[in-house]
Amino acid sequence: MLSPEILADPVELTRVLVDVESVSGDEAELADQVETALRRAAHLSVERHGNVVLASTHTDRPQRVILAGHLDTVPIADNLPSTVEGDVIHGCGTADMKSGVALALNLAATVARPRYDVTYLFYDCEEVEAERNGLNRLAKTHPEKLAADFAILLEPTYGLVEAGCQGTMRAVVTAVGRRAHSARSWLGVNAIHAAGAILNTLEAYEPRTVTIDGCTYREGLNAVRIAGGVAGNVIPDECRIEINYRFAPDRTEAEAAAHVRELFADFAVEITDSAPAAMPGLASAIAKEFLDVVGQPPQAKLGWTDVARFAALGVPALNFGPGDPNLAHKRDERVEIPKIRAGAEVLRRWLTA
Amino acid sequence: MLSPEILADPVELTRVLVDVESVSGDEAELADQVETALRRAAHLSVERHGNVVLASTHTDRPQRVILAGHLDTVPIADNLPSTVEGDVIHGCGTADMKSGVALALNLAATVARPRYDVTYLFYDCEEVEAERNGLNRLAKTHPEKLAADFAILLEPTYGLVEAGCQGTMRAVVTAVGRRAHSARSWLGVNAIHAAGAILNTLEAYEPRTVTIDGCTYREGLNAVRIAGGVAGNVIPDECRIEINYRFAPDRTEAEAAAHVRELFADFAVEITDSAPAAMPGLASAIAKEFLDVVGQPPQAKLGWTDVARFAALGVPALNFGPGDPNLAHKRDERVEIPKIRAGAEVLRRWLTA
Repeated sequence: MLSPEILADPVELTRVLVDVESVSGDEAELADQVETALRRAAHLSVERHGNVVLASTHTDRPQRVILAGHLDTVPIADNLPSTVEGDVIHGCGTADMKSGVALALNLAATVARPRYDVTYLFYDCEEVEAERNGLNRLAKTHPEKLAADFAILLEPTYGLVEAGCQGTMRAVVTAVGRRAHSARSWLGVNAIHAAGAILNTLEAYEPRTVTIDGCTYREGLNAVRIAGGVAGNVIPDECRIEINYRFAPDRTEAEAAAHVRELFADFAVEITDSAPAAMPGLASAIAKEFLDVVGQPPQAKLGWTDVARFAALGVPALNFGPGDPNLAHKRDERVEIPKIRAGAEVLRRWLTA
Repeated sequence: MLSPEILADPVELTRVLVDVESVSGDEAELADQVETALRRAAHLSVERHGNVVLASTHTDRPQRVILAGHLDTVPIADNLPSTVEGDVIHGCGTADMKSGVALALNLAATVARPRYDVTYLFYDCEEVEAERNGLNRLAKTHPEKLAADFAILLEPTYGLVEAGCQGTMRAVVTAVGRRAHSARSWLGVNAIHAAGAILNTLEAYEPRTVTIDGCTYREGLNAVRIAGGVAGNVIPDECRIEINYRFAPDRTEAEAAAHVRELFADFAVEITDSAPAAMPGLASAIAKEFLDVVGQPPQAKLGWTDVARFAALGVPALNFGPGDPNLAHKRDERVEIPKIRAGAEVLRRWLTA
């Protein structure tokens, strides 16, 4: 139960949110609790779309900002219910990203007249395939709900501003050969051996480093899966390598695909998945005001995050949250209580100045 | 029913044997028919061990030879009952190896006083895992039954002498790395990229060609399977390559294993499966006499066959049969009638000279 006392304390709120299990696809209970809590605030109008909960202020400010967080977590790894040790809360979702959700929920419940109008957005299925992502669904069915001048995604950044994000593309590069019995291997062509050339290209690849708006994006090109082979006595006729290209925001998806195809021009290349990068978008006045309150230089966001969905809708967006991104998805995931308090303080100062 | 008329004609006998289905594990009916037919011959003493049938002459010759064949076939592929088109018998088992079994059974029934004492050996489960192989079982439980000066396995060789066989070894070579999120790939070590060095070694490998007793063995070292990868956004920490080494009979299994370990000294190597090679064993007087009757130079056997089991017991052994080895296990498996007649003639001349 998200009582007013719990909603008023972002640390206590984090613990309560963490202890409501909400692995992707199983967010209904948590969405119910969030919706119920928000509907008690007279200054908010609340909507529910599946397991997406939207709450908005309507105070006729000239500008609107979005504070967004996903409700779901990766699968639990013997790390629930949460525990507290000194200044640290341990448990699944503490960093990614229920401590961030707690900051937004705390503000939603307690700031009746913010400096800008605010849309608080809590959504489901961020940790799974894009088609199920609640924000992605909303962007397609109700893009007008995402109209805003600026957005903050409360993903773990350890209290820094992480701006924009890299694009990500997956491709399958296939080496082919000809089957034969392995006792007469010279009658065949070994596709796994041929795939060595693909791995050599990957091993020798020098990824770019690109700086935009003071944010430095470091690219990466990696094999993430390899598979080949027919049977223990057959020269294999196919070897498939799935690669993942993380590209800086100065490249479009089309440019990224052309780059991958050029690198592996001797092989069949199938692009299987792609998401655009997002420019850091730090030029707007609201972004600058937020950066001033944070008081730290912005960093490039390296992972792909839903800020790219806002960027695609023309809404400048950045990541800012109390969790350590390096602890996301780990068995020993945790969040530092002082980081929660500091993040809450930054957002409150910015929204109520 | 294997009547005396059918037993006297290796071609007719082939058809009758083929039409008794005997997929591995289901040889009882065929073993029964073979046993019954052999027990009618006064010059043979017959034993049955499971679905292994042994029939021996005891004419006090100074030397004993074994003629052996397996009764089982691979699964039927819409190719039974057999059909005859011109000079060709079509059907499952025609080449591998009921035409060979027919030659042995024809001799067993009709040659009362062969030049050497003969043990005719018909066994089950050659086409499946070694533990079920009837010859392998007999070698363990009754090795004395396999004592002989020379053995011929009537596997398909298209009328040539194929001597000895290569050894075969499987090993898993593993490249290791360190996991990281693929958006921050420089924090990890990509095991699939590291496996490129293994593939380069395989691609550059120059297999040996070894000639023994006039038989040339061509080795091979091949990746037959590769697998690696954790998820589409994770730098993989392991890549496993299964390799198959086919080695000439001048190498023991231990030497073969040492060679593989040396080639991949920078990686973890696990030997997962191994079967020894067999020397061609053509030096004996009996082998020379047989080669003289065949009148063709011997060839190296490249695939692994049960001759290696005889070699392991100290019995020189070779393959000689009417079927085409390239048709074994194929849907359009077939045998040429003139090859059956020629093979029968060679064996009869050799055994009755």
